[in-house]
Amino acid sequence: MRKLAVSFEPHGKDSHVPVGTTLFNAAHWIGLPIDSTCGARGTCGKCKVQVLEGETELTHADRTKLTEEELAQGWRLSCQARAQEDTCCFIPALMRVPKAATMGTGRLVLLEPNVKKVYVELAEPTLEDQRSDFERLRDALAEEGYGVEPAPHALRSLPAALRASRFQATAVLGGDRLVTVEPGDTRGVSYGAAFDLGTTTVVGALMNLTTGMSAGVESTLNGQAPFGADVITRISHAMAGPDDLEELRGALLETVNGLLAGLYREAGVGPEHVYELVAVGNATMLHLLLGVDPSPISVTPFVPAFREPLDLPAKDVGVDIHPDARVHTFPIIGAYVGADIVAGILSSGLARDEELRLFVDVGTNGEIVLGSSEWVVATSAPAGPAFEGAEIRCGMRAAEGAIEGVALGESVELQVIGGDVRPQGICGSGLVDAVAQLRLAGLLDVSGRLRSAEEVPGHPLAGHLVTIGEERAFLLADGIPLFQKDVRELQFAKGAIASGIQVLMDRAGVTPGDLDEVLLAGSFGTYIQPESARIIGLVPPVPVERIRSVGNAAVEGAKMALVAYPERLIAYDLPSVVDYVELSGRPEFNELFVSVLAFPELEALELEAVP
Amino acid sequence: MRKLAVSFEPHGKDSHVPVGTTLFNAAHWIGLPIDSTCGARGTCGKCKVQVLEGETELTHADRTKLTEEELAQGWRLSCQARAQEDTCCFIPALMRVPKAATMGTGRLVLLEPNVKKVYVELAEPTLEDQRSDFERLRDALAEEGYGVEPAPHALRSLPAALRASRFQATAVLGGDRLVTVEPGDTRGVSYGAAFDLGTTTVVGALMNLTTGMSAGVESTLNGQAPFGADVITRISHAMAGPDDLEELRGALLETVNGLLAGLYREAGVGPEHVYELVAVGNATMLHLLLGVDPSPISVTPFVPAFREPLDLPAKDVGVDIHPDARVHTFPIIGAYVGADIVAGILSSGLARDEELRLFVDVGTNGEIVLGSSEWVVATSAPAGPAFEGAEIRCGMRAAEGAIEGVALGESVELQVIGGDVRPQGICGSGLVDAVAQLRLAGLLDVSGRLRSAEEVPGHPLAGHLVTIGEERAFLLADGIPLFQKDVRELQFAKGAIASGIQVLMDRAGVTPGDLDEVLLAGSFGTYIQPESARIIGLVPPVPVERIRSVGNAAVEGAKMALVAYPERLIAYDLPSVVDYVELSGRPEFNELFVSVLAFPELEALELEAVP
Repeated sequence: MRKLAVSFEPHGKDSHVPVGTTLFNAAHWIGLPIDSTCGARGTCGKCKVQVLEGETELTHADRTKLTEEELAQGWRLSCQARAQEDTCCFIPALMRVPKAATMGTGRLVLLEPNVKKVYVELAEPTLEDQRSDFERLRDALAEEGYGVEPAPHALRSLPAALRASRFQATAVLGGDRLVTVEPGDTRGVSYGAAFDLGTTTVVGALMNLTTGMSAGVESTLNGQAPFGADVITRISHAMAGPDDLEELRGALLETVNGLLAGLYREAGVGPEHVYELVAVGNATMLHLLLGVDPSPISVTPFVPAFREPLDLPAKDVGVDIHPDARVHTFPIIGAYVGADIVAGILSSGLARDEELRLFVDVGTNGEIVLGSSEWVVATSAPAGPAFEGAEIRCGMRAAEGAIEGVALGESVELQVIGGDVRPQGICGSGLVDAVAQLRLAGLLDVSGRLRSAEEVPGHPLAGHLVTIGEERAFLLADGIPLFQKDVRELQFAKGAIASGIQVLMDRAGVTPGDLDEVLLAGSFGTYIQPESARIIGLVPPVPVERIRSVGNAAVEGAKMALVAYPERLIAYDLPSVVDYVELSGRPEFNELFVSVLAFPELEALELEAVP
Repeated sequence: MRKLAVSFEPHGKDSHVPVGTTLFNAAHWIGLPIDSTCGARGTCGKCKVQVLEGETELTHADRTKLTEEELAQGWRLSCQARAQEDTCCFIPALMRVPKAATMGTGRLVLLEPNVKKVYVELAEPTLEDQRSDFERLRDALAEEGYGVEPAPHALRSLPAALRASRFQATAVLGGDRLVTVEPGDTRGVSYGAAFDLGTTTVVGALMNLTTGMSAGVESTLNGQAPFGADVITRISHAMAGPDDLEELRGALLETVNGLLAGLYREAGVGPEHVYELVAVGNATMLHLLLGVDPSPISVTPFVPAFREPLDLPAKDVGVDIHPDARVHTFPIIGAYVGADIVAGILSSGLARDEELRLFVDVGTNGEIVLGSSEWVVATSAPAGPAFEGAEIRCGMRAAEGAIEGVALGESVELQVIGGDVRPQGICGSGLVDAVAQLRLAGLLDVSGRLRSAEEVPGHPLAGHLVTIGEERAFLLADGIPLFQKDVRELQFAKGAIASGIQVLMDRAGVTPGDLDEVLLAGSFGTYIQPESARIIGLVPPVPVERIRSVGNAAVEGAKMALVAYPERLIAYDLPSVVDYVELSGRPEFNELFVSVLAFPELEALELEAVP
């Protein structure tokens, strides 16, 4: 793979990073802090490290910020020095105790947002000092180690802001960009927003950038839902013409702005104090957010218009935060492995830790990532809508009245969303549970065939095995039969994902026993029972304690990138270390698919049917 | 001063440039071409020179583009190598004959616009090559030496543009920014606009960027005129509140867009093919164009909000060119020495040639620049409205019916705008002529006092000397008397400018005999008779052949920057080599002012009164 080892003293830790990664980023890959106030732009001079082994090129910033003696001793600005070979360097002790927060899958993230507020007290102008307002501010910021360019919108607020408070003001920086200037000292008030734009669900979080704490999280149905349940139908709608594309964009924006309004209300925060928004989501949602035609994504050879991380004016995007703030999107790996998955890789540490992990985001498309700090492979498998409860006759979305959990013993025990309400149907996690429990109860054979009541005489649940029309079914509750065909739909769905997993494992030469952890992600992954996933063969046969639900790993990644700029830089590097495997057109995929349709033998899972 | 000498072999020419200027820019300062296709961004690698004397730092771009052997021999990318001391380098012969155009005051400008059109034929995507549309384009552009970032607006047009013409398309670049992508080969069609935003007059030029030729020039009254004749009254209006500021911005924009519409009509060009606009103008006009409150400019200590060159989205500014193009403004030297003067310095070569020149833009504020390639000083003198024809009782703007030239001999000969029309009043250039001719005719004494008919018995024009009410006057035509007080107004106006000139000459230790050239600029400077300017003492007593009208030097500078990016870079460097002298609060200014109110003795100008 395309990785180098960078080791850090005195910690004695190794980081495996792509060629060309800065030593600063390499340290952050493994959570080691290096001092910096300029966001790794080479201007504050605080991030120096001493290179002990390996060559790194001397840069202009090095010469500006370091003495001849320091240069001769191998000191370099770690944010500028790029690893070109295996490298070892020494990190000085931090001069300050960094603020940190636990985020993602229990990762300690150092608080260092891209948005910074810098308070300055400027000398008032005189005939002897006729520097412009901007130069006066720029010079003061330069003294603090920040370099800024004149941005037209910030110039508009500058004369009034400086004169409102006797030239004492707070500059709001988004990286090296001047977002705005506020009169007086407003350092205490600084927010950002993180969004995961899912096809079904949009999740937004408001983050307090001075504390790194969440100020609120909200989620809602994507307002594009009326235009189709999955990305393919959405794209079909967008293809009808520019107005339809704009309609989809508008619906998504309305959803985002609706969530923001709720977050603002709850937290008592105004949009003018939200200085950045980080958005992740699948490739199609990011295209639609920008109003870029996504149609080539839906037809072979599945090509997105862009994969890069973008830095967009909030005003152009149309999100209701500070009008001169920016929206940052994560990069995309492929047409069907989007920025949400990059965010998941970031927040789970999959590409940075030594553990070998399998990450599965279960949905209409199952996104699958396998790897560790050494290498990462990823693919996308077309699972179809079964996991969303669609194509299942009694299926429904995970809403009130949906059966989300099933336990079969002497009787049928159901867990219904909303608690003590009458079940209306079954959602994805309930379906997985039901099928797994039928397997355990001996009511469903390894091929996926439902047994009949006659085949299991005396079984306490035999009475639930019925025939409706000509089709077998298991009665989960009054009026809620799980049909044979529904079981088949689930088999197809899990078969697609299991095949994708198998392709990646074969390619990497990995067996289930090598896996340290299996992470189930996404809104569906959060609710699925690890044991059930194992029983139906959705995931490889690993001990159940190695299977973990990680919730919405995508929005966690976006939040991390919001409160910690170095994490964002890592996210931007991630696509370069992930090998994308296209399943379309691979003959072995179809063979594999057929071979994994059946369920695992219970013995192979060290389980036995009860009763 | 803050300049270094960079000499270029085999030409044997020296360039005097600010410390830190790149060798590439230093060559362009004196009109020497160096090959380059990337606009001095270090990506094309074509601009290498061999440094023979002087140290320049090795850069990352050098290492990327040059071989070890070349580096060892002192070859550097001239666009990255910055002169830190006196330097000598060798420029290889050009591999191509550069297109050039004569612009400004007869300067040869090499055609190298910031806007470039690059035609690419891309491989169509396959399952084996799933690069995104943007990556496909970026990779092809990189092969041609162009690096681009993904811009959201360009992404919007990308999928359709590529698929409209089988992945053969033309990328429009504004520097390293992707403006848009057009299907097929559109390299032949490329335009830019150059504007001078004057308080009184706005001038716009449409330039064909493939030929460097003008496709049209139009000028009109600034639509802000109803809000006041000069910048101070405009600023007073803007201070009333944000709506009034917006009203001024709107009026200026309407003027600019009106001129553009006329230019488009004349040239048969659509706004979608105008990919850049370069704007110059005084500090107040640039503030108003952006909607930035200019009020601190109008009160001591006269501080603008910004002085930097700006790079603005055309859509934000509101000018009617390609919506995703940019507007570039020149830098400002001081509150009253604006971007128009920087453009004049650029187009006149004042800061680049060895000749010592005095540049005077005559108007309500007289901007004065003195210098050569060795040093430059500048100031602004408050001349008042006399030169614009205001405060003169029979004064009028330079419109049809205005007396613009006066010759006194046996009779009064008038040159009237519009030709054979009845004179309605007198404009600035006519006023200067009239007063100069009165001096020559012996009808106005050195102190500025009009003689009476009794004092000049037998003079052929004695009959024109009249008394109206209690005031003496000279009848230029029926109903158009030039009053004693009008002469005084002109004396005050020219006195202010002459004082400013004297302050600069004293400061630099320069006498009139040292001046190689006196350049009269601006719409007024174009029409003034050099001899008359000399006779009234507006300019120092130099031989008349050294006084030259240079027309609208400001719009010429903007045009040069449009067709030649290296010229733009020079303009951006100019403020750092110009010493701005503030006249307010200088006690010697008032003394000087009083001393230069009188007219020069004719003998001192080697003239004598006739008849």
